[in-house]
Amino acid sequence: MCVWYRVERDTFGELKVPADKYYGAQTVRSTMNFKIGGPTERMPIQVIKAFGILKRAAAEVNKDYGLDPKIADAVIQAADEVAAGKLDDHFPLVVWQTGSGTQSNMNVNEVISNRAIEILGGKLGSKDPVHPNDHVNKSQSSNDTFPTAMHIAAATEVHHVLLPGLQTLHDALAAKANEFKDIIKIGRTHTQDAVPLSLGQEFGGYVQQVKYSIERVKAAMPRVYELAAGGTAVGTGLNTRIGFAEKVASTVASLTGLPFVTAPNKFEALAAHDALVELSGALNTVAVSMMKIANDIRFLGSGPRSGLGELILPENEPGSSIMPGKVNPTQCEAMTMVAAQVMGNHVAVTIGGSNGHFELNVFKPMMIKNVLNSARLLGDASVSFSNNCVVGIQANTERINKLMNESLMLVTALNPHIGYDKAATIAKTAHKKGSTLKATAVELGYLTEEQFDQWVKPSEMLGPK
Amino acid sequence: MCVWYRVERDTFGELKVPADKYYGAQTVRSTMNFKIGGPTERMPIQVIKAFGILKRAAAEVNKDYGLDPKIADAVIQAADEVAAGKLDDHFPLVVWQTGSGTQSNMNVNEVISNRAIEILGGKLGSKDPVHPNDHVNKSQSSNDTFPTAMHIAAATEVHHVLLPGLQTLHDALAAKANEFKDIIKIGRTHTQDAVPLSLGQEFGGYVQQVKYSIERVKAAMPRVYELAAGGTAVGTGLNTRIGFAEKVASTVASLTGLPFVTAPNKFEALAAHDALVELSGALNTVAVSMMKIANDIRFLGSGPRSGLGELILPENEPGSSIMPGKVNPTQCEAMTMVAAQVMGNHVAVTIGGSNGHFELNVFKPMMIKNVLNSARLLGDASVSFSNNCVVGIQANTERINKLMNESLMLVTALNPHIGYDKAATIAKTAHKKGSTLKATAVELGYLTEEQFDQWVKPSEMLGPK
Amino acid sequence: MCVWYRVERDTFGELKVPADKYYGAQTVRSTMNFKIGGPTERMPIQVIKAFGILKRAAAEVNKDYGLDPKIADAVIQAADEVAAGKLDDHFPLVVWQTGSGTQSNMNVNEVISNRAIEILGGKLGSKDPVHPNDHVNKSQSSNDTFPTAMHIAAATEVHHVLLPGLQTLHDALAAKANEFKDIIKIGRTHTQDAVPLSLGQEFGGYVQQVKYSIERVKAAMPRVYELAAGGTAVGTGLNTRIGFAEKVASTVASLTGLPFVTAPNKFEALAAHDALVELSGALNTVAVSMMKIANDIRFLGSGPRSGLGELILPENEPGSSIMPGKVNPTQCEAMTMVAAQVMGNHVAVTIGGSNGHFELNVFKPMMIKNVLNSARLLGDASVSFSNNCVVGIQANTERINKLMNESLMLVTALNPHIGYDKAATIAKTAHKKGSTLKATAVELGYLTEEQFDQWVKPSEMLGPK
Amino acid sequence: MCVWYRVERDTFGELKVPADKYYGAQTVRSTMNFKIGGPTERMPIQVIKAFGILKRAAAEVNKDYGLDPKIADAVIQAADEVAAGKLDDHFPLVVWQTGSGTQSNMNVNEVISNRAIEILGGKLGSKDPVHPNDHVNKSQSSNDTFPTAMHIAAATEVHHVLLPGLQTLHDALAAKANEFKDIIKIGRTHTQDAVPLSLGQEFGGYVQQVKYSIERVKAAMPRVYELAAGGTAVGTGLNTRIGFAEKVASTVASLTGLPFVTAPNKFEALAAHDALVELSGALNTVAVSMMKIANDIRFLGSGPRSGLGELILPENEPGSSIMPGKVNPTQCEAMTMVAAQVMGNHVAVTIGGSNGHFELNVFKPMMIKNVLNSARLLGDASVSFSNNCVVGIQANTERINKLMNESLMLVTALNPHIGYDKAATIAKTAHKKGSTLKATAVELGYLTEEQFDQWVKPSEMLGPK
Repeated sequence: MCVWYRVERDTFGELKVPADKYYGAQTVRSTMNFKIGGPTERMPIQVIKAFGILKRAAAEVNKDYGLDPKIADAVIQAADEVAAGKLDDHFPLVVWQTGSGTQSNMNVNEVISNRAIEILGGKLGSKDPVHPNDHVNKSQSSNDTFPTAMHIAAATEVHHVLLPGLQTLHDALAAKANEFKDIIKIGRTHTQDAVPLSLGQEFGGYVQQVKYSIERVKAAMPRVYELAAGGTAVGTGLNTRIGFAEKVASTVASLTGLPFVTAPNKFEALAAHDALVELSGALNTVAVSMMKIANDIRFLGSGPRSGLGELILPENEPGSSIMPGKVNPTQCEAMTMVAAQVMGNHVAVTIGGSNGHFELNVFKPMMIKNVLNSARLLGDASVSFSNNCVVGIQANTERINKLMNESLMLVTALNPHIGYDKAATIAKTAHKKGSTLKATAVELGYLTEEQFDQWVKPSEMLGPK
Repeated sequence: MCVWYRVERDTFGELKVPADKYYGAQTVRSTMNFKIGGPTERMPIQVIKAFGILKRAAAEVNKDYGLDPKIADAVIQAADEVAAGKLDDHFPLVVWQTGSGTQSNMNVNEVISNRAIEILGGKLGSKDPVHPNDHVNKSQSSNDTFPTAMHIAAATEVHHVLLPGLQTLHDALAAKANEFKDIIKIGRTHTQDAVPLSLGQEFGGYVQQVKYSIERVKAAMPRVYELAAGGTAVGTGLNTRIGFAEKVASTVASLTGLPFVTAPNKFEALAAHDALVELSGALNTVAVSMMKIANDIRFLGSGPRSGLGELILPENEPGSSIMPGKVNPTQCEAMTMVAAQVMGNHVAVTIGGSNGHFELNVFKPMMIKNVLNSARLLGDASVSFSNNCVVGIQANTERINKLMNESLMLVTALNPHIGYDKAATIAKTAHKKGSTLKATAVELGYLTEEQFDQWVKPSEMLGPK
Repeated sequence: MCVWYRVERDTFGELKVPADKYYGAQTVRSTMNFKIGGPTERMPIQVIKAFGILKRAAAEVNKDYGLDPKIADAVIQAADEVAAGKLDDHFPLVVWQTGSGTQSNMNVNEVISNRAIEILGGKLGSKDPVHPNDHVNKSQSSNDTFPTAMHIAAATEVHHVLLPGLQTLHDALAAKANEFKDIIKIGRTHTQDAVPLSLGQEFGGYVQQVKYSIERVKAAMPRVYELAAGGTAVGTGLNTRIGFAEKVASTVASLTGLPFVTAPNKFEALAAHDALVELSGALNTVAVSMMKIANDIRFLGSGPRSGLGELILPENEPGSSIMPGKVNPTQCEAMTMVAAQVMGNHVAVTIGGSNGHFELNVFKPMMIKNVLNSARLLGDASVSFSNNCVVGIQANTERINKLMNESLMLVTALNPHIGYDKAATIAKTAHKKGSTLKATAVELGYLTEEQFDQWVKPSEMLGPK
Repeated sequence: MCVWYRVERDTFGELKVPADKYYGAQTVRSTMNFKIGGPTERMPIQVIKAFGILKRAAAEVNKDYGLDPKIADAVIQAADEVAAGKLDDHFPLVVWQTGSGTQSNMNVNEVISNRAIEILGGKLGSKDPVHPNDHVNKSQSSNDTFPTAMHIAAATEVHHVLLPGLQTLHDALAAKANEFKDIIKIGRTHTQDAVPLSLGQEFGGYVQQVKYSIERVKAAMPRVYELAAGGTAVGTGLNTRIGFAEKVASTVASLTGLPFVTAPNKFEALAAHDALVELSGALNTVAVSMMKIANDIRFLGSGPRSGLGELILPENEPGSSIMPGKVNPTQCEAMTMVAAQVMGNHVAVTIGGSNGHFELNVFKPMMIKNVLNSARLLGDASVSFSNNCVVGIQANTERINKLMNESLMLVTALNPHIGYDKAATIAKTAHKKGSTLKATAVELGYLTEEQFDQWVKPSEMLGPK
């Protein structure tokens, strides 16, 4: 097999670059110096696409400030291709590189400049007429572009994957809450039998959790919409023009349809990534909600015979390789695994966020990898869980009724009539004898059958009076 | 030594209660069943005080709904004493009890009922004329009172300790940012020398972090202001009156001066504590900011001779038991330890929050303990760090100037004049020879001394042009 | 009220010291500079006691090396009192102080020197004839004494609280595994019905987890037994005598009965606390085991009517303030809350451990606080859980038999006889019709009633053949 | 474009399977039901390879127990191909599937059976003559095979990637410790100047950390070497033959060269994955060590002019896109990012491990993904950090000497001669005047120049006397 190379050089010497790739010397050097983790650990493609958007925006603004329109236009076209995912194969770098993401910024600069050179009829690797630093990276530094790409990528993933996924789940649960609103069931506290509620009320709790999940994520976004672009190397904006930062942010906003603005304090925007820690905290809270909901649903659907059995979960696949006829709550399992992962990712983001020093946090690639992973997993899992589980859930009303009618906790309804102590005696006696509340109550002589039926009505125990 | 007891009984039998304590049988039983962790692990006193507020509010509303005013007023008086911290010695229970906090709710009910009995001239332990369940806990369940107390306690701690502490820190840092605004210093990225910024800009980044810390905490509060009271056992509000929930919330609001409202969904409010996970997430982000700021300040203040030495930190105490004359950044150390603790607390809260089942989360005492601990530690440490460190920080301008003038990174200013490659050559040559940029530049023949002085002006490198 | 003071001074000036306290100026100064968290946040008393042991050992060795025997003996006596907990009121400092624990080391030095002075008839605060630095701290630095006290405290807590607690739990569970060895029950995988096992086998899994918990903790101890004493300020052992380190370690070993040795590398022992991170990791794994066991037990004991109901948990206290007759798995709840706390503590320890710089880690007090808290909570909770829950667990054999006999999963036993596909058809059909396996199998004509009884014997499904 | 399919069916109906793939209906169904996370989230290939080893071992043992040798041999050949990575493209499933990993087990069964069918001249998808369940999965269940594959994969990754990587780092650091053993430098505690040590001693601390890292990982392995195989569905070993478990373990041991044994308690081995939590805890401790070492090295190498500057780190790539001549500690950054990730992964593993229920933990794929990721990242990063950073580190002896000679902390050496108080006065005076210790000491009249030179010898401050 013959592999074609071209020879390029950086300030450290010559390097062989695969002839069919747009990237250049600095990218190749990074692949040599950071053999960590392999292909699965590549810089998330969402970051690369975000860079495409940023580089296009920067080129537009640089054109306004005097960059040769021919060069600017070629950069814009090439950047658009990056943003559209057409050049994904040209971004081989892994997350575990320099902590500023410099090498990925250079990877982008190299790819865009070479592609722009190609568009303009030049020779790959010549840096002529489009130079990766002087033109593609103009008025920029890795230190402000990478955080900008982080925020663009995070906001985009939140808007295109996470929030729609949560909304899908919200709507699916809300539909079930409504469908189940008249099914009265036994409540459970401490995993023990408790007073009744409707199945719709129970699902209504989940709906509220997802509704707040959406609110929480949205509440974290204002600070994610702030872009570092224009801060250049340390946040001062050295080597940029007044207005550059604002124009880039507003261009990115119009390209993405999201309300990006320039960060009010560029020093904070480079040296800290609190905004992503905050977003990750919101995702962590979403994960907590998901764990609760998915756990409940699998327990309520446990059985078919020896579990709680109040819900019938849809059968999606053969469950066991040894036990025929068994169907498992696999969507709940995927969701709870995702939840655990998001909680772990959050700790990684937290630790990375806390360890910035002076003018630059250098845990950037790791942080954005985890935030994007969390957002994607939660969004995807919400859709999968909704479509393959929630929408197909049926209430096992026969079982629900049976459990409720046998329950000892309906005795609570007698408190106002015969007092706490007598009510407790009935419940304890029925429990010991394995008898019903009604029979026991009558037997103990505390009330008549008619009184029992009049006083103990589950349907009247679902709210205040 | 003779200890006086009275004998009380619960549904499980007789128990000896210390004669000088207001608590009763259920409290004593809990101390017997949960010998975990010892006195340092007691239910946070803020929760007890919050219970005092809640019990007073419930008594007021119950009075409106027909509770005997004599009883209600005695309960109110006793509850006020709990809220005021006058009865702290009567709450011996530890956090590691039932996960619903039921035993602490009963501890409160017992103390208030006995104190109210005493006020009314009755006999301790008689439950007459004030019954802990029938009167003090009227229209309530542990399942809604404990979460209500959690939210009252958390909101109160945030408002009385955390936010004022963060504001103190914000103001102290902002004053320094202003004081230092004209001191130009070398920037550092990757812990390496970078282009200059002003010391005021550097502190301005910290100011922004604390400003956002305050915003983040506030952004989490709306859901903390929601109270579960009125949900009773499973969230339905069984055994309460219509309007009870709203009136209790509004009474608590007026007692505390905080905008509490009744939770729109009581099922969520009992079964999940996402609001506290969210708040804990905000505290985690604050901790991340604090770690960054305190780390920077100790590194910038490192020395006195062999460190960075740009800041002179106040000397507060003898530093070392073996090394005379050494003064350590002890406030930074306390702050960073607090930050690590808060991050750990957050994981505990996250795990507890995710493990609720069905109608009740039973990690309540653990969750609120950690949230309160985080809020208190961050608030206290912010004040201590401000008063004992930040306000006393001096800039070591001599050192700052020396470092900046020796820096190689000012070469960046030459990029627009002689190009990236020549600039790089100057920097590398000066680095190898241990020479200055100016001497090297002239020696290499790239420019004149006059040009260097004209082009390399740190004061003109602090912003866009 | 009149409070008596004496006036002392440190290198920073004069201070008022309460007349009845043995501590001195540096302790008072710390209380002024670190108003963080209040009394609940005091340095764990186990650390203070460990310091007592260390200071005694150091005095003994110093006496060998020439310290005036009169002084040494007084120091030894005073240190013994500290180790015995007789002077606990003299240690007011909080964890949130200098990260080296210097102030607590000085607190100990001051208390021991003043108590020794008192023993020798001198005047408190005079530093004569026993000087806190020159005598009590002789051949020591905070930097090596505090880590030494950390290790002594951790090892002691592990040996006196944690391991006995785990052993108690192990034995209680093992007794139950034996008691339940002939009770055959339905297994559950994915929370769904599965093939049978014995209740003894199920508890046997828990026994194994606790057995390994003990092994894991023990496996972490060798590195905890290594003492930093003798490293002094940076690990070199400056100002100590050759042999001092080894003699102190061996004296501590003989005082405690634990196999302490001098750390082979004092630089590592001061600059890192990996040994405590490792121990915390073991505690974290124990917590994971506890969460599983306690969760299972509460679910298996759920009911009384609407849960799984296979176990009957002991009733220890009134369960609910609103629902009479309800008894909750409160010991499981305490245990799972402890587990969550330990997992959170572990993250705090991890973060603190990772953030040491150069020759000293300065997250020491926070780290040891969390390790001790985890060890204590796990040990105490294991005992409480054993005594108040495990030993009283009864198998609800009626319920267990009913569930097993109704189970569809016994169909697995037919696989070798009629093949996977027919077996699956039987199970699915029985499931849909709500019928039994036997009836369905016969109805489908796949086998006879006799064959079913012969082939489906749960007691023969408990192991390989 | 034309895509060829074959039609297969599972118990849920017909499915289209790409004609060129060995996998079958259940795999395809999983891809339809779990669209979560995309290609980067695939089941780690190490798990697939481990399955290859396990399936081969099981086939060998089944052959001993009577499986048709022709079928067994074909399965063995196909399994070997899986183990060798020749069929990687046939495993499309993601981690976020059923929590037992059932679908990946079936994916393996399908691929091996179809490949074996092909070897034997049969038709893909026919299940004839090699059936995925009846032959490839014989005597197995997902519930025991997946945990077995988890342990094989983890142990293999530890032995082939992690431990060699740590050894490389250990040796590189040890070589440096030796190389630097005579270079005396200023120590730093609290980031402040402290007494001297040799650079070799400082690196010796790192060497010890890595040495213990290796020990810690090894200490966790005994329980990872325990294999669940033979436990089948719930741990009883139903449908296996006596001896199967032991033979499979010993076959896997001989195939891998690692000391695998059969788990002594299969119930624990299926229901809990404490062994992986324990291993993850060891990896977490390794990460803590790595963070410390990499942080120190980047700070000691900070500069070139405005940092500590004691180490000269190798230049591996152009550092900044805006600042010419700047070289960054990029390997330290990759390593510290890896460390943060491992700490986060550990929390995910912890949470997953704690949430197993009854006879099965269903967080298996997530847990093993994180453990493998941590092991790989730490191993790879250790090699990269060693080769691209540690081996090239040079001591900047000029700078080291300058800092040490200017240091005030050498004053400690005067303690034994003139006492703590005078020594402190010298240090403080010199500090205020910016003068040297010697000049100040003489000026204060505390000693002569000769005495100073005689008493203050850094080379004599490196150990006990």
